Amino acid sequence: MGKKSLNSQEDLHRPRIGIDLLGCETPGATLLKALIAHPFEGEHPPKFTVFGTEEIFDNVATPEDIICHTVTEQIEMDEDPLIAIRRKKDSSINVGISLLKTYDLDAFISAGNTGALLACAKIHLPMLPGIDRPALLTLIPTKKDLIAVLDVGATVDVKAENLLQYAQMGIAYQKSRGIAHPTVGLLNVGEEKQKGTPKLRRAYKLLQDLNNDAPIDNPVFAGNIEGRDVFHGEIDVIVTDGFTGNVFLKTSEGIAGFVLDQMEDLGPLTSLPGVKSILAKLRERLHYAEYPGALFTGVEGLVMKCHGESSPDAIINTIKGASRLVNHFFLEKIKAELK
Amino acid sequence: MGKKSLNSQEDLHRPRIGIDLLGCETPGATLLKALIAHPFEGEHPPKFTVFGTEEIFDNVATPEDIICHTVTEQIEMDEDPLIAIRRKKDSSINVGISLLKTYDLDAFISAGNTGALLACAKIHLPMLPGIDRPALLTLIPTKKDLIAVLDVGATVDVKAENLLQYAQMGIAYQKSRGIAHPTVGLLNVGEEKQKGTPKLRRAYKLLQDLNNDAPIDNPVFAGNIEGRDVFHGEIDVIVTDGFTGNVFLKTSEGIAGFVLDQMEDLGPLTSLPGVKSILAKLRERLHYAEYPGALFTGVEGLVMKCHGESSPDAIINTIKGASRLVNHFFLEKIKAELK
Repeated sequence: MGKKSLNSQEDLHRPRIGIDLLGCETPGATLLKALIAHPFEGEHPPKFTVFGTEEIFDNVATPEDIICHTVTEQIEMDEDPLIAIRRKKDSSINVGISLLKTYDLDAFISAGNTGALLACAKIHLPMLPGIDRPALLTLIPTKKDLIAVLDVGATVDVKAENLLQYAQMGIAYQKSRGIAHPTVGLLNVGEEKQKGTPKLRRAYKLLQDLNNDAPIDNPVFAGNIEGRDVFHGEIDVIVTDGFTGNVFLKTSEGIAGFVLDQMEDLGPLTSLPGVKSILAKLRERLHYAEYPGALFTGVEGLVMKCHGESSPDAIINTIKGASRLVNHFFLEKIKAELK
Repeated sequence: MGKKSLNSQEDLHRPRIGIDLLGCETPGATLLKALIAHPFEGEHPPKFTVFGTEEIFDNVATPEDIICHTVTEQIEMDEDPLIAIRRKKDSSINVGISLLKTYDLDAFISAGNTGALLACAKIHLPMLPGIDRPALLTLIPTKKDLIAVLDVGATVDVKAENLLQYAQMGIAYQKSRGIAHPTVGLLNVGEEKQKGTPKLRRAYKLLQDLNNDAPIDNPVFAGNIEGRDVFHGEIDVIVTDGFTGNVFLKTSEGIAGFVLDQMEDLGPLTSLPGVKSILAKLRERLHYAEYPGALFTGVEGLVMKCHGESSPDAIINTIKGASRLVNHFFLEKIKAELK
């Protein structure tokens, strides 16, 4: 099955979601079957373009309304991102991003080589006006609502100004999730405003501008926040540079898994009825891959990155997240925040 | 009870440990009573000098072999560290560090104002030869042995050379705990050597020098390590700058507490017999304050910082940790590593 017209369906209100079937540990055929089987509900269910090999499409009977886009190249996980995207023009990542650029897709989702996906998006998609560094945004669970953390790894070294831009993008994201007045915290080693590096002290000052139009007793920028307080869920958006954010995210994953392993190692506990299913549930909740994948914010186009080990359910959750962002005009909302 | 002679006991093999009874949320009198009641065992049990107010010493009957040092000033938790140590010369922190400087103590333990303790130690104690930035070292639990993480907050901004020095101090520390050949990992956002900031790439190169005398199949420097892999316990020492290390530590505390809270919130679980005590045990194990307090490494003298919320048990654990370091000639071992 080859390339079909990208505009075979004319429902303009249905989000057009591109899905990379390659690069995920779950085989592409399994992902495609899960996609076909899943009942996407709502007034405007997503319309899919899937990117995969001839082999996948030969082996999975795909309904007419899914556009199958055969690619001849695949970027491997361990390839150098810049070399890979330059050499493998007909890879799912290159083709998907190019269709996003020409507005033939509203969003593109991939679980493939992170560096290649981000580099490709950065090279081919224009930056949003007012943004000069993109960020990866992810949702993490807390005692209350999910909070948005950015940057979790797109740019290791940033300026104070970039942290303000991240805050604005995070606010727009949380608004699209239905939070009317999202609050922002700056990840730091203490709450006092003089804490951290000179760059963070400058960011603290810049972030205070977010409070210009806010009521004094209800500020948008809530100040510095420490890693241990993030999980109380008092804040909706956490901003940090991509190095610290990545360490924060991976440490959270690591210790959460460790605690759950320890629970399971405490023999008498897991032999109790029901405990294993509770632990499994908790593990799933803490596995960030189960949440809508990380969003690459700052570029003109919705690019979502799923964990390389994503299950079909994780990809489906990401599709739902992407559809919501399209339906809620997320890119337009970011632009409004940045004004 | 006033100041007694610091050399009233002449057993030269007993570690002389100074304990700040002020600045901890646990009242000084409670700490002192716990200290008196605890049977410190071993061939060379510690010999104590305690620093507190007249009120404490008037209210607790103290055995002859504990030296009670009355101070007239106290540095509060929220005081500016540099101003406090300059103004409050007769505070427990100032007096304790000065006795460490004159070799009248082998170690000084405080749960008071961290900034004041570290600043005071940095100002008054010489740096160890070859070290130009001190670090806070703490032990964290993993699936295997405890690992040493440094710096968890002494110096937010460091050079690549400092990370090599931290590695050497961490190796000496783990050797003093009985690990014959400790291995070192550099906390980073990926395992590949080109990951992270230019500073980290330089540190990676410098750290490879640790492998010069090591067998090829058993290197001392094991390369970059991600936050999620730290808890597997394959490495003995993790080095990082004080900003990232502090975020790492606090995030670990935060998410561990969050996971345990979530477990407790899952109602049916905690109503099961025995589960509450298992959860409490796990919480204690993950509460870093229960481990020997953080060690301020790099200065000529053993300074240990306990959590402000330390229980008497946490202080006693710290005393045992400090005694072990004295008995194992930790400072001399660091100097040997640095050669």
